[in-house]
Amino acid sequence: MDYPFAERRKRMQSSLIRELLKLASRPGVLSLAGGVPAAELFPMEEIQRATAKVLQRYGAKALQYSPTEGLRPLRAWIAARLGVEADWVLITSGSQQAIDLVGRVFIDEGDPVVVESPTYMGGLLALNPYAPRYLTVETDAQGAKPEALPEKAKLAYILPSFQNPTGALMDAPRRRAVAQWAERANAVVLEDDPYGHIYFDAPPPPPIFTHARTRVIYAGTFSKLIAPGLRLGYVVANPEILAAIIQAKQASDLHSNILGQVILAELIDMGLMEVQAERVRSLYRRRRDRMTEALRAHLDPEVAFDVPRGGMFFWLRFPDGTDTRALLDLALESGVAFVPGEPFFAQTPYPAARLTFASVAEDQIEEGIRRLARAYERYKTRTLA
Amino acid sequence: MDYPFAERRKRMQSSLIRELLKLASRPGVLSLAGGVPAAELFPMEEIQRATAKVLQRYGAKALQYSPTEGLRPLRAWIAARLGVEADWVLITSGSQQAIDLVGRVFIDEGDPVVVESPTYMGGLLALNPYAPRYLTVETDAQGAKPEALPEKAKLAYILPSFQNPTGALMDAPRRRAVAQWAERANAVVLEDDPYGHIYFDAPPPPPIFTHARTRVIYAGTFSKLIAPGLRLGYVVANPEILAAIIQAKQASDLHSNILGQVILAELIDMGLMEVQAERVRSLYRRRRDRMTEALRAHLDPEVAFDVPRGGMFFWLRFPDGTDTRALLDLALESGVAFVPGEPFFAQTPYPAARLTFASVAEDQIEEGIRRLARAYERYKTRTLA
Repeated sequence: MDYPFAERRKRMQSSLIRELLKLASRPGVLSLAGGVPAAELFPMEEIQRATAKVLQRYGAKALQYSPTEGLRPLRAWIAARLGVEADWVLITSGSQQAIDLVGRVFIDEGDPVVVESPTYMGGLLALNPYAPRYLTVETDAQGAKPEALPEKAKLAYILPSFQNPTGALMDAPRRRAVAQWAERANAVVLEDDPYGHIYFDAPPPPPIFTHARTRVIYAGTFSKLIAPGLRLGYVVANPEILAAIIQAKQASDLHSNILGQVILAELIDMGLMEVQAERVRSLYRRRRDRMTEALRAHLDPEVAFDVPRGGMFFWLRFPDGTDTRALLDLALESGVAFVPGEPFFAQTPYPAARLTFASVAEDQIEEGIRRLARAYERYKTRTLA
Repeated sequence: MDYPFAERRKRMQSSLIRELLKLASRPGVLSLAGGVPAAELFPMEEIQRATAKVLQRYGAKALQYSPTEGLRPLRAWIAARLGVEADWVLITSGSQQAIDLVGRVFIDEGDPVVVESPTYMGGLLALNPYAPRYLTVETDAQGAKPEALPEKAKLAYILPSFQNPTGALMDAPRRRAVAQWAERANAVVLEDDPYGHIYFDAPPPPPIFTHARTRVIYAGTFSKLIAPGLRLGYVVANPEILAAIIQAKQASDLHSNILGQVILAELIDMGLMEVQAERVRSLYRRRRDRMTEALRAHLDPEVAFDVPRGGMFFWLRFPDGTDTRALLDLALESGVAFVPGEPFFAQTPYPAARLTFASVAEDQIEEGIRRLARAYERYKTRTLA
C-alpha cells in the first residue's frame, strides 16, 4: 500500500544491532555483539522482596497515574549524587528516552549537532528523526578532543565515561574544556552517562554537568546498575530546561511506569545500590581482564585496541580498507558475532568492531576471541589471494 | 537564560488538566476533574501474586532488555480479540505513546489531520508538536458525523467508544462510514479506544478497525482495565504500518517495561481480565447512575447533557456565552472541581465541562453535583447582576 507517511519516517531506520542480534542468536554462535548487562547480576531476590513490600507500603499509589516528573524519593536520591535539588530531576523511560526528548526540545531541521566520532548508535537513532546536521568531533582514548569542537552548535551529544562503543574515558581537563566550550558556543551539552559507575580502577572525574549546570543536561540510567527491563533512566537539568523536557515527556507518555519507580526507591532504602555497583564492577572487571588476555594472545597485532578502564566494550580498529561486514560473515561462519563499527559513525567511518565482555561467561571469552582471530586470518588470506 | 530551543517547543504546553488537578487537590475540594480510574478497583492481590510468580517463571527475562514489539503472549491475547495475528501488535508505554508515535510516523508540518470537536486533550498534546493543520469534525451523541469529514486528510484521530470528554458512542453505520471515508480519502485513521470495555448496557459495535484493517490503526490500553501506573498500552495495525511505528518506538525508548508486561501476561493466564472488566463496569455503572440522578435533581435544566452508556465522563453543555473558567473559580470556592471544556477543542470551543464519576465515591457524588449546581446559580446571578 502507498501510505501517507511523514518525511521523518525516511530518517528512521531499524537498528543494525537489532538485525545482527538475530544472526548472533543462531545456535552455535558465540555472541560478543550484545550491548546488554549480565543477567546473572540482576538482584532477583531483592527485587522480589522489594516488590512485595512496595505493594503493601504504597498500595494503589504504586499502580495509579502519577506525576510526569517521577517519584520524589527516587528523584531526591539521584539529585543528591549530583549535588542538586530533586526538582532538577525527571525520571524517563530509560536514558534512550532522555536522548529522544532532548532532541525533541532542541533540534530544528538542519540544526548543527555535535556527536563524537564514533558515538552510541542508539543516540543517532534517537536524534536522526529531528534531522540535525551532524558535526563530528574526533576522539581518542581520552574521548572527544575539545579543540576539535566547532565554533558554533546548538547541541553536543557526549558520552564521557567508558563510551559506547570505544570505552574511552574523558579526563578532567577535557570535561572542563567541553563545559567552557558550551558557554562560548551558546550550546547545550547532553552528557550521556550509562557506564560511569562501572569503573575498574578509579571512579571517573566529576561529570561535565558539575562544570556548567546551566548548560549541561545529564542523562543516567538504572539499566546497567539494576536491570534494563524496568526501563527507568533520568535526566538532570536546570529547571528552565527541565520544564521543557517534562512537557515533551508528558505529551509522549504521561510518565514512566511507577511500579518500577517504587521498586527502585525500595532498593535504595535497602541499601542495595552501592553493593550492586560493586558486584557489577567486580564481575565486569574479571571479564574485561579475560578479554584483554585473549586479545593479546590470539589477535593479529595489526588490529589496534585500548584496554577499557570501565564500561562494557572493547573497540577494535582494523587496518584501513578492512571490510568489517565481510569479516562479520566469516566470523559468523567461525561461530562468533560482533558489531561492525559503521553504524556508530554519523559521518565517515573507519574499519572497527565493537565487542562486549559484559554478558559473556568467563569460560567463553577466550574461545570467542580465538574464533574472531581465526576469522580475521581467513579474511586476510582471502583478501590477499 | 536564552536557551536555543527548537521551534517545536513552542507548540508544547503543559496540560491544563495537570494544573487544575493541583487546584482540585486542595483540602476541602471534591474533585470531579480527574480522569483517573478508581484505585479501589486495582487488583492488588492478584498483581502481588502474579509478580511473585513471574519473577520465578521468567527469571532474568522479566528484567532484561527485550524486543521492541513486546511480549509475545500479551501480543497474542490482544491480537486474538481483534481477529488478527500477534505480529500486528506493538506494546506501547500507554496509549498516550501510541498517539505520539502515530503522529511521528505520519504528520509533516501543515498536514491535514482530522480531530473530533471536542476530542481528548491528551491527544492534542501528543499531536501538537508535529504541527498538523487541524480539521475538526462535528460530533453528537453518536460521535463524529461522517458526512462532516473533509474530502482529503492524512490522518483522522477518532475515539468511537464512550469518548473522552463527551461520552459519545459511535454507532455501527457511522463506524463503517468512517472506514469507507478513509479508503476514499487515502487517509489513515487512529482509532483510540481506552473505554470500549467499560460499557453499561451492551458492548460497543465492532471497532472501525474491523472494517478497514489496512487503513485503521487501533490503540488500546491496560490503564483502565488493570492499572495506569504500569504504563502499558498497545497499537494494532497491519504490518506495513506497524513496522514504521516499531522503528519510531525503538528510537524513542527501545521497548516498554517488561516486568509490567509479564505481570499482565500472568494476569491473563489467571483468567483475571474478564472478571476485572466486569468489576470495572459494575462499579462505574453504579456511579454513573448516581451522577445521573444528582444532575437531574440539582442542576439547572438549561445545562444540557447526555447520559453516557459507558466510559468515565459526563459532558455538560452550558448556554452560549457561559464563561466556564469563571464558573470554575466559583465552583472551587464552593468546594468542587471540574475540567472546563476549552482544552478539548482544537478550534472554536463551546462552553462545556467534563465531570468524572469513575474515581468519586458514591456518597460524594450527590454532594459534588449540589456544589456545582450552587456555583452555577451564583455564576448566573453575578452575570445577570
